[in-house]
Amino acid sequence: MNQANNKSETALIAGIDALIRDVPDFPKPGIVFKDITPLLSNALHFAASIKFLADRCRAKDPQIVAGPEARGFLFGVPVAMAIDTGFAPIRKKGKLPYRTIEESYELEYGKDTVAVHADAFSPGQKVILVDDVLATGGTMAASKRLVEKCGATVVGAVFLIELGFLDGRSRLDGLPIESLIRY
Amino acid sequence: MNQANNKSETALIAGIDALIRDVPDFPKPGIVFKDITPLLSNALHFAASIKFLADRCRAKDPQIVAGPEARGFLFGVPVAMAIDTGFAPIRKKGKLPYRTIEESYELEYGKDTVAVHADAFSPGQKVILVDDVLATGGTMAASKRLVEKCGATVVGAVFLIELGFLDGRSRLDGLPIESLIRY
Repeated sequence: MNQANNKSETALIAGIDALIRDVPDFPKPGIVFKDITPLLSNALHFAASIKFLADRCRAKDPQIVAGPEARGFLFGVPVAMAIDTGFAPIRKKGKLPYRTIEESYELEYGKDTVAVHADAFSPGQKVILVDDVLATGGTMAASKRLVEKCGATVVGAVFLIELGFLDGRSRLDGLPIESLIRY
Repeated sequence: MNQANNKSETALIAGIDALIRDVPDFPKPGIVFKDITPLLSNALHFAASIKFLADRCRAKDPQIVAGPEARGFLFGVPVAMAIDTGFAPIRKKGKLPYRTIEESYELEYGKDTVAVHADAFSPGQKVILVDDVLATGGTMAASKRLVEKCGATVVGAVFLIELGFLDGRSRLDGLPIESLIRY
């Protein structure tokens, strides 16, 4: 890639921050939600964000991308396309039609359960996890355990946004983590 | 594109059918669910399906792609990337953080509501709808009304799979519809 292209890529990446909208008090009072829909609607910046994430994924040499519903699909699928792998959807319990493997995790109040198809990963397969936001890391930690239950290996996790103040990394056991924007 | 490439593309498209798995009695007894996850996990065939759908979308010259959660994201986002447009997520009520416009539709028992952000589309913008399966067309008809409420225009709808026996087309008011596989 020549320097002119690199420069415009850098400018596109720098412009992504302005396309993340803060929505106060969502989903509940006191939470400031990072709304990614302005980025999705901007073809050039969205494509630049996918290229950034795909480059970080490719460096880990994964054989498949997995991402949790629903926003993980928005980034995980185009990343999988960009690095020429398939995609395994991680869904809430009850949504996948075939035989599943499940993993529960604690929420502030109660618990939640994520699932993958029993044949989503082959034993020893190298899996990279992709999601829009790393917050407390609860979903990601459960997703990692889910992949490992299937006998596959998580080689890293890549996020558009990392909420550093919530320290999600500490729940991911030293897993290599990359993010494009850190708050 | 040369003939050799065309031939391999044709072979890849022809192989997609074998990657759609019938799961009987999901989500309820008597329904045979079309499971697309084997296709998602096959990088070559998945990419071929996206290219097929993207070509059909491009022919309608849309300015943005919209797709309903969650499986519509799996196809709509890579199609948007392929045709260099943005993507607008259509979500269940309560999931989008910013101001929304909503549209309800009847289910067999009760009703459901889909929503988009109030700024998802600009007035007069040409929108193409993408989803994995056209079944009864209820979600798609509501999605079309939603786009029109925003002052934008739906120029077509593109699906991986069309369940012809459910006649979803009849609920979409003559909208141009394309599908890769028809059952």
